[in-house]
Amino acid sequence: MIQGHCTWVFKSRPVILASAAVGGPFEAQGSLADDFDILHDDIWLGQTSFEKAEKTLLEQACEQTIHKAALKKEDIQFFLAGDLMNQIISSSFVARTLAVPFLGVYGACSSAMEGLSLASLIVDSRCGDHVLVGTSSHNAAAEKQYRYPTEYGAQKPPTAQWTVTGAGAALLGQKGIGPRVTSATIGRVVDMGISDPFNMGVAMAPAAVDTIEAHFRDRHLSPDYYDLIATGDLGRVGHRIAGDLLSKHGLDIPPEIFTDCGILIYKNDQPVMAGGSGCACSATVTYGHFLKRMGRGELKRILVIATGALLSPLSYQQKESIPCIAHAVSIESE
Amino acid sequence: MIQGHCTWVFKSRPVILASAAVGGPFEAQGSLADDFDILHDDIWLGQTSFEKAEKTLLEQACEQTIHKAALKKEDIQFFLAGDLMNQIISSSFVARTLAVPFLGVYGACSSAMEGLSLASLIVDSRCGDHVLVGTSSHNAAAEKQYRYPTEYGAQKPPTAQWTVTGAGAALLGQKGIGPRVTSATIGRVVDMGISDPFNMGVAMAPAAVDTIEAHFRDRHLSPDYYDLIATGDLGRVGHRIAGDLLSKHGLDIPPEIFTDCGILIYKNDQPVMAGGSGCACSATVTYGHFLKRMGRGELKRILVIATGALLSPLSYQQKESIPCIAHAVSIESE
Repeated sequence: MIQGHCTWVFKSRPVILASAAVGGPFEAQGSLADDFDILHDDIWLGQTSFEKAEKTLLEQACEQTIHKAALKKEDIQFFLAGDLMNQIISSSFVARTLAVPFLGVYGACSSAMEGLSLASLIVDSRCGDHVLVGTSSHNAAAEKQYRYPTEYGAQKPPTAQWTVTGAGAALLGQKGIGPRVTSATIGRVVDMGISDPFNMGVAMAPAAVDTIEAHFRDRHLSPDYYDLIATGDLGRVGHRIAGDLLSKHGLDIPPEIFTDCGILIYKNDQPVMAGGSGCACSATVTYGHFLKRMGRGELKRILVIATGALLSPLSYQQKESIPCIAHAVSIESE
Repeated sequence: MIQGHCTWVFKSRPVILASAAVGGPFEAQGSLADDFDILHDDIWLGQTSFEKAEKTLLEQACEQTIHKAALKKEDIQFFLAGDLMNQIISSSFVARTLAVPFLGVYGACSSAMEGLSLASLIVDSRCGDHVLVGTSSHNAAAEKQYRYPTEYGAQKPPTAQWTVTGAGAALLGQKGIGPRVTSATIGRVVDMGISDPFNMGVAMAPAAVDTIEAHFRDRHLSPDYYDLIATGDLGRVGHRIAGDLLSKHGLDIPPEIFTDCGILIYKNDQPVMAGGSGCACSATVTYGHFLKRMGRGELKRILVIATGALLSPLSYQQKESIPCIAHAVSIESE
């Protein structure tokens, strides 16, 4: 390893054997509805709490993924997951259902790519086969925990984002047919002093930029190597800032290949302010939309940079600014 | 990999180049005071909140570890950490201070060994060198978040445990002198239906047993291979149950080598009910006490099984039982 190098290049190129995306009623009205495996018209999913509804979303994404790979849960060797709930209860309770060895991760909305990076490392180092990775978020559960219960109807500024209700999962294997995880760049915490939780896209943009630059420096590649480079959930405001910062640093990504999961997932007329966010944002868009496009041959090489704001309501109350992080994973067709 | 196998055997045997333990005033009065690098007589550490005090504990453990290895923070390639605070803010804020690539983990009080397992995998697979791993807990911050602020003086049953105020860190490298991480067994979630957060040792005991059995099955070893087998923070009640369950399953661990970090850390006359708990319990005892004993040649091979209760105050309020997990790591002298 070279000092300062933060990219893992996976020699064996772990295969994504199957993946699934599950969404709620708001996602069903979004731009990518066709790319979800399951869509619910009830935000409660028939459960007695929003937290139990979120657990059900992740459970379904995992079950669907295992089913699509024609495997049983007993075939899963390790499960990696994380989510936004305090003590990542959505992930832990799904790990209880699955009853397989479990590693909990936390990187806020970057958890999807943090989990995928570590799962790929496990498969690539021959320390595991059939490794399942997943994450979830639920709009009402997140609003209740981080901001105000939605019933309060509190107003939000146009820089705010809408937490995606959904879950995404992917199953990695050493052999098989499917797109392959070729590398992962682990980000460091970047904090530019932003402390407004209604402006997380702006807070996270510099972290995304730091990781994107590290990725291209470590891999000696230029952006046009990829057909698509997508940030996780910067939204309209943060994504534009990320693009500007990259240009300023001399790394121009052609606008036609540079996008953001939080912009893609909803329609322009949906009242989502700056766009989607939450762990499920990059997870559902990647494991649903992008992988389907790769399956159809429309995309060959993609880079997903999931961004996370590592604040808590308490750190905000204690006047701390928002530490942010981003992890990037490249997925390529065989 | 063999299906059902959940133990990683590290061929290169990553070296623990340095480690450190930091504690609070209650730990300074405990049995292992001599094995801490830094002990504070102020529970606030001069900070304005318990949460900021916890962050400072972890910061000091990391700085002390890097210093003992005669390195600088720029030499650290990856940092893995997790803690009990919502959104693991202690770890994330220390990651901001360190400004190196960061992977957040969450396994409640099992986080210490979850982090050490993944850090060892990164080093063993040549994906990183100088990988720092750490965890922390703070009695007053944890009580405030999980139960009642200590100022309330709420009574507790004798099965309750005392959250350790402290932090532990270890620095792993590919080459060098020091004890070596030889294997890690990743646990699955076990939930026997216990829902009393004042009886976590009993809730966690079956998870510890499940992981210990998996470890010896996967490695084809018998318990006498080790000089010491220590559970993380089962406390007096849970540790006895774990021993009984293991015997019942035909795996007898000689009592003279079977211990628990939560029992070792405090003196019998300290008012800690069933013993110590918290992420820092197994971390400070392992990275302080055990590694010092290994350094003196008193122990050659140890197995640490850190246990975690994956509940949240909300899951408890919603009448869920407590999902538990345990991860085991073996450390051996060269």
